[in-house]
Amino acid sequence: MEIEIATVGGYEEVGRQMTAVRAGDDIVIFDMGLNLSKVLIHDNLRTEGMHSLDLIDMGAIPDDRILSDLDGTVQAIVPTHGHLDHIGAISKLAHRYDAPIVSTPFTSALVEEEIDDEDKFHTDNDVVQMNAGGTMSIGERCELEFVNVTHSIIDAINPVLHTPEGAIVYGLDKRMDHTPVIGDPIDMKRFREIGREGEGVLCYIEDCTNANKKGRTPSEAVAREQLEDVMLSLEDYDGGIVATTFSSHIARVTSIVEFAERIGRQPVLLGRSMEQYSGTAERLGIVDFPDDLGMYGHSRSVDRAFERVMNEGKENYLPVVTGHQGEPRAMLTRMGRGETPYELYQGDKVIFSARVIPEPTNVGQRYQSEKLLGMQGARIYDDVHVSGHLRQEGHYQMLDALQPRHVIPAHQDMAGFSGYVELAGNQGYKLGRDLHVTSNGNTIQLVG
Amino acid sequence: MEIEIATVGGYEEVGRQMTAVRAGDDIVIFDMGLNLSKVLIHDNLRTEGMHSLDLIDMGAIPDDRILSDLDGTVQAIVPTHGHLDHIGAISKLAHRYDAPIVSTPFTSALVEEEIDDEDKFHTDNDVVQMNAGGTMSIGERCELEFVNVTHSIIDAINPVLHTPEGAIVYGLDKRMDHTPVIGDPIDMKRFREIGREGEGVLCYIEDCTNANKKGRTPSEAVAREQLEDVMLSLEDYDGGIVATTFSSHIARVTSIVEFAERIGRQPVLLGRSMEQYSGTAERLGIVDFPDDLGMYGHSRSVDRAFERVMNEGKENYLPVVTGHQGEPRAMLTRMGRGETPYELYQGDKVIFSARVIPEPTNVGQRYQSEKLLGMQGARIYDDVHVSGHLRQEGHYQMLDALQPRHVIPAHQDMAGFSGYVELAGNQGYKLGRDLHVTSNGNTIQLVG
Amino acid sequence: MEIEIATVGGYEEVGRQMTAVRAGDDIVIFDMGLNLSKVLIHDNLRTEGMHSLDLIDMGAIPDDRILSDLDGTVQAIVPTHGHLDHIGAISKLAHRYDAPIVSTPFTSALVEEEIDDEDKFHTDNDVVQMNAGGTMSIGERCELEFVNVTHSIIDAINPVLHTPEGAIVYGLDKRMDHTPVIGDPIDMKRFREIGREGEGVLCYIEDCTNANKKGRTPSEAVAREQLEDVMLSLEDYDGGIVATTFSSHIARVTSIVEFAERIGRQPVLLGRSMEQYSGTAERLGIVDFPDDLGMYGHSRSVDRAFERVMNEGKENYLPVVTGHQGEPRAMLTRMGRGETPYELYQGDKVIFSARVIPEPTNVGQRYQSEKLLGMQGARIYDDVHVSGHLRQEGHYQMLDALQPRHVIPAHQDMAGFSGYVELAGNQGYKLGRDLHVTSNGNTIQLVG
Amino acid sequence: MEIEIATVGGYEEVGRQMTAVRAGDDIVIFDMGLNLSKVLIHDNLRTEGMHSLDLIDMGAIPDDRILSDLDGTVQAIVPTHGHLDHIGAISKLAHRYDAPIVSTPFTSALVEEEIDDEDKFHTDNDVVQMNAGGTMSIGERCELEFVNVTHSIIDAINPVLHTPEGAIVYGLDKRMDHTPVIGDPIDMKRFREIGREGEGVLCYIEDCTNANKKGRTPSEAVAREQLEDVMLSLEDYDGGIVATTFSSHIARVTSIVEFAERIGRQPVLLGRSMEQYSGTAERLGIVDFPDDLGMYGHSRSVDRAFERVMNEGKENYLPVVTGHQGEPRAMLTRMGRGETPYELYQGDKVIFSARVIPEPTNVGQRYQSEKLLGMQGARIYDDVHVSGHLRQEGHYQMLDALQPRHVIPAHQDMAGFSGYVELAGNQGYKLGRDLHVTSNGNTIQLVG
Repeated sequence: MEIEIATVGGYEEVGRQMTAVRAGDDIVIFDMGLNLSKVLIHDNLRTEGMHSLDLIDMGAIPDDRILSDLDGTVQAIVPTHGHLDHIGAISKLAHRYDAPIVSTPFTSALVEEEIDDEDKFHTDNDVVQMNAGGTMSIGERCELEFVNVTHSIIDAINPVLHTPEGAIVYGLDKRMDHTPVIGDPIDMKRFREIGREGEGVLCYIEDCTNANKKGRTPSEAVAREQLEDVMLSLEDYDGGIVATTFSSHIARVTSIVEFAERIGRQPVLLGRSMEQYSGTAERLGIVDFPDDLGMYGHSRSVDRAFERVMNEGKENYLPVVTGHQGEPRAMLTRMGRGETPYELYQGDKVIFSARVIPEPTNVGQRYQSEKLLGMQGARIYDDVHVSGHLRQEGHYQMLDALQPRHVIPAHQDMAGFSGYVELAGNQGYKLGRDLHVTSNGNTIQLVG
Repeated sequence: MEIEIATVGGYEEVGRQMTAVRAGDDIVIFDMGLNLSKVLIHDNLRTEGMHSLDLIDMGAIPDDRILSDLDGTVQAIVPTHGHLDHIGAISKLAHRYDAPIVSTPFTSALVEEEIDDEDKFHTDNDVVQMNAGGTMSIGERCELEFVNVTHSIIDAINPVLHTPEGAIVYGLDKRMDHTPVIGDPIDMKRFREIGREGEGVLCYIEDCTNANKKGRTPSEAVAREQLEDVMLSLEDYDGGIVATTFSSHIARVTSIVEFAERIGRQPVLLGRSMEQYSGTAERLGIVDFPDDLGMYGHSRSVDRAFERVMNEGKENYLPVVTGHQGEPRAMLTRMGRGETPYELYQGDKVIFSARVIPEPTNVGQRYQSEKLLGMQGARIYDDVHVSGHLRQEGHYQMLDALQPRHVIPAHQDMAGFSGYVELAGNQGYKLGRDLHVTSNGNTIQLVG
Repeated sequence: MEIEIATVGGYEEVGRQMTAVRAGDDIVIFDMGLNLSKVLIHDNLRTEGMHSLDLIDMGAIPDDRILSDLDGTVQAIVPTHGHLDHIGAISKLAHRYDAPIVSTPFTSALVEEEIDDEDKFHTDNDVVQMNAGGTMSIGERCELEFVNVTHSIIDAINPVLHTPEGAIVYGLDKRMDHTPVIGDPIDMKRFREIGREGEGVLCYIEDCTNANKKGRTPSEAVAREQLEDVMLSLEDYDGGIVATTFSSHIARVTSIVEFAERIGRQPVLLGRSMEQYSGTAERLGIVDFPDDLGMYGHSRSVDRAFERVMNEGKENYLPVVTGHQGEPRAMLTRMGRGETPYELYQGDKVIFSARVIPEPTNVGQRYQSEKLLGMQGARIYDDVHVSGHLRQEGHYQMLDALQPRHVIPAHQDMAGFSGYVELAGNQGYKLGRDLHVTSNGNTIQLVG
Repeated sequence: MEIEIATVGGYEEVGRQMTAVRAGDDIVIFDMGLNLSKVLIHDNLRTEGMHSLDLIDMGAIPDDRILSDLDGTVQAIVPTHGHLDHIGAISKLAHRYDAPIVSTPFTSALVEEEIDDEDKFHTDNDVVQMNAGGTMSIGERCELEFVNVTHSIIDAINPVLHTPEGAIVYGLDKRMDHTPVIGDPIDMKRFREIGREGEGVLCYIEDCTNANKKGRTPSEAVAREQLEDVMLSLEDYDGGIVATTFSSHIARVTSIVEFAERIGRQPVLLGRSMEQYSGTAERLGIVDFPDDLGMYGHSRSVDRAFERVMNEGKENYLPVVTGHQGEPRAMLTRMGRGETPYELYQGDKVIFSARVIPEPTNVGQRYQSEKLLGMQGARIYDDVHVSGHLRQEGHYQMLDALQPRHVIPAHQDMAGFSGYVELAGNQGYKLGRDLHVTSNGNTIQLVG
């Protein structure tokens, strides 16, 4: 059976991930993501009403026209988790394919929200839920399996396409977490089995975000311990405390909520995406927040919540807000500008449970946000965080578990791949033979 | 009563700390430290036989000749903890003063070892032990008190000289740790009392090592969680694992020892200073290591230990060695050079439970050490560590607790003081009035 | 005679420089500057209509209320050169003082433009021109002298107040340039004379911008050589070439104009401040631009100029535009956004004859600007520039020439002063004795 | 005719460059270099007596065993210029091939010195001189041509192998210099001809050292202007001035010598490699140094020269010494340690006409060297230098001139290639098609 991989998007950047695997006549698409930075560099661009081709020209979504070169039929579109760089182009591209969107429950819910928000295109592909551990047939001879992984969002999986020539393991995005705070540990046992059963692993596509970093990405349990250390040290403080983190990072939000209560403060989630992700997670029964946890997304209800906090005493509350990257329109930046009813006083604390994404735009915006907060008297706790992506030792462990015949680094540019090429080289892989450094828009013939 | 502070050493650098406080006719000296980098820059210098004046000329030990300007009698020499930059000049300078050396038990033991190792001078000052919480009279009207603090070495205290004009609090070195793994949490309650009782605090001398860093220094409990995360992730690895950390960091060594046993390996401490500090801590009953924990300092016994490990299987042991900064003659560097019986194989793990001290010499040596280890196949887990020094939020909390009338930043150079000057400014202190930025060899008249 | 220095502004930052010197009953003010970053952090703030007190509260202009503590009469306001951080607060503060504004011709012209643009306050102080080398009496016993210096703007001087107690030399801002492209070399001979005549130098106030940098700031002749190397290497390129630099840097603009002509292109200056500074310099006869050099400031005439360039062929022109820091509303950023009639094609060149001011906001904005330009195909020549401020060897040479009895570092914050404190220390100055590290709003009594 | 490229060494690192090109039955080898850092990491290794295989195992010289896979006969070994990373393995590897060593006169002289210094192997290959512009036949149908290029050493060329299938251009190492101080400008005219004549360029192998840097590498004329600016600013200084630069950088040494005389000082070249390179250049008549220019390499004659300088007055001399990277045994480092008769006094100047190679070992050693010099009172002028390697705009210009059908980035590792891959991508090249990112030990079949 012919096996071919098309590297549609996310092989020169972080963002707009999309990969197509053809096994005989059947094609499976992994991820359809958005490169948000290509949108934000333009002022005031509203993507909901834009055409796919314009977004492709901007480099914002994958150029899926390469799929016309693949001789087969798309059988499934598989978003691996709910981050925008993996699902953000579905509303622009999925309608072109007569195939269901298959994903875990939390991811499915987020995909449906994306589809609902879209103005330009109507997407009526089936959205099919499949849990980690589940399998479904692809054509007559292949099978799709979801293996549970741990990432900075819940319900993440690595999809595996089992073919007669061996398994294709799509390894984006994960870290190796045995104590992930929410959900099950990464299923290394299953990866090891896949590496040894049948024809073994034909090809492994890997997330290289942190492939230039030594050692091991710490568990979410470490971030939780850091957060506990910071928040409990503030137990006696009787002024304002505000926290911010990735809205989609439900495990982190849960820890913040829990420690807020532990120090005698009522947490309240504020900001559109804060409400969206946490609300969805709660609705699906994935987390069990306190009954009285407020979540407010619309600006009027956010303002009312802030007013209540000011009236009843800042010392009784802990707002958890959007804005960890200093995004100009996010809630925390607006607080820094004095545009919300929440007044910061000298000595108030702001906890960033996030790291600045090291790109000069973010660094500049975050700096501005901290300056504005500082001008109002706030003091910053920075970088209370661990990454959601494997470092080098995790990559070694995955190669050891899967023993793939071919490896394709992804989710970075060439400089980002360099550490992976070196480590894969240490494990005996060789550029141009079984280690495929590539870019967007290529096809790699694995079995001819 | 006249009160005067002499900033003898450590006010332009980290290293060779020494401060003298005169209250009326009585003088107390806090710390007599060594600036090791000024020694190491010269090849093969053996300080044990060198004269004080030569070491003063090199900038290696404090220039205590300024004490002849102080009109009083030295009543006590008070090393605050056992790091060399606080005790390393005692064997060169203390003999000039007819005064006891007063310190906590662990510090006292280390001071005595320093004195024993000295070849040039004979020090016969009394070495008096006093625990945290203890007090002793200084002259007729003053009292010396030890307040328990938390640092990267056990049994650290901040000494307080109570005078009729208020307390002088010597704040070097500490972090604010409420869960320090070994020993008691920092005694913030006592600091708050001192700030409010009697005349309050006349002067506070503060450790500015991390004063340019935002937020809070994490607790040792966070380092322990990081270490647990790394070490337990290696539970299934059946090759060599080696760890390195600060020899004097008994809490850290204890955690490594414990997790080594948890993953089924026998820890063994190797290297001269590794044996010295842990041996002393065990002898004093401060830690309770496993009965069969081996500690070897002499090179022959280290080699024998390595041979045993090689014979009985590297998978059964976890050597904890010196060399976290890549020091050319330390054990780990020698392992990298293949100069020990321990053979590193492809894939073996080396855990650095330390951060590189960010000075180009260290950075270069550490890089070389990692290169050598890597050439033998070893892979590195880096930076499994938290600092022992307060960051900005800790400084704010100390100023809030003590409410000192005068503040003197120390333990840095001018650039290092800058963050402290800014934060003290936010709390109402003013340069040239009650905030004293100074350098080595000055005297500050607080009460005239 | 009592001599006192008030450090009004610019002693904790770069920006809003202002210093007052009282000699007996007479006061001279050096500089009244603006900290532009404190304005720009607020969206869309128009300062022309704002009240001084609001701008003081924002930290944008110096808090000159401290002058009421000085027992004397202001006799002159002396802006040292035309940069905004030295003249930008004159229109907000000068009207409070019954004293002339004394400055060199180019600086005077820029001050008058500032005054004209102001909406809130009416400034009718006399604007008196005095050239480098000139002197004027201050009260009965003092004299003001202008010494020629070299900086990144023409017609810069260091003012010297000669008093019976010695000279007060105000050393902001300069580099030591013996080949400055436009104007005379720095007058080191006169500085050496001042250091040796009469009572010598009582006090020297110094620009510490680059005091943490080793070596010597290169001459403008080096920047000119770099520019020549870049521009002549493009002689055969037949597409678009655009250059940007500091609008006020007339020597640099002149070099760009000259090399543009050398490679057969007509230079044209575009952007409001580009027109303002170069137009003023030409009007005063300080530079002699080619007769046909176009300068356009109003957006409509800029657009017309761009249209002409597009019609007659980009290969015939070299637009010199604003936007070297990536300022969001500057001409170059607008070109990157495709908002001007000038179309960038693949391979067009953009020469930044400027360094990014290393503050995260600028870095982020410049990065965005380069990204936008790159998305249109442009390629960047970066950092074709030398600084206008002394490095350490220049400081050593000034101390050697002036041999001042007191030194006050300025034009930086504490971290920025650190290199200066060290080098002054090497020359025998001592903190707290004759080396005065200070902050905004202090007074230093030199002769009591 | 079959054309094949073997990437023997220098495709994963800077150092040990070696490439073999097979055209039909004939093979030409370009460069045989040494990776010096792999030698220096081991203490006290003397390579002169070592066997090739040991040096290959250490990664110090290229693993040329891959040449046995090429079905042809080596016809020439072509070192492109005299740097060790290009000629340093000739004495270890060339004797295995029955082929002449063909290079320019200066390179040939240096190669012969390498061969003479070797203890282990006897190399009796012919050393054939060919000037830039020269050609020689390779087998029956190919021709080797030398094109003049500009680099940080004189007499550098890019060799071109003309084959019936097109030209193979070996582009290591160069910058695009039209005003190189010594020698002719880069011969861009010839490159453009080669790009357009016959079959054009089949393959271009390119030096990626600076491929991640924007803009253009400045000409040596810019370094000369910087040097003039620094040195003439010291005209009035009457103490010691010392300069250091790359010994092999004859153009730079010439400029230093010239400016030394201009400020009234007698230059003297000190250190083994300083004498070697400059002596060779003078002997070949490439430079015309002043008659009385002293050059001393042996330690005894160096010491005598220093003694003469001390006796006759440091103000009359300008020693030009080895040690620009802080190498522990170089002359300047020894001066810092006080191990030479030259005594540094407070205020003496040391000019580094070199940049630190940004690798932590160098950075650390250079830092130590500067510390030692500083402890003796010396002050540093840093980074008076421009690089010898193309930046991005040079790469664009080369691609435009040659229009090669295949491109192979070299002289870096994967991270270093990343900028080149991006820029080649902008010019229409595609990874895996005509843009070959590779590693050591591969063969690339261009014509099968």
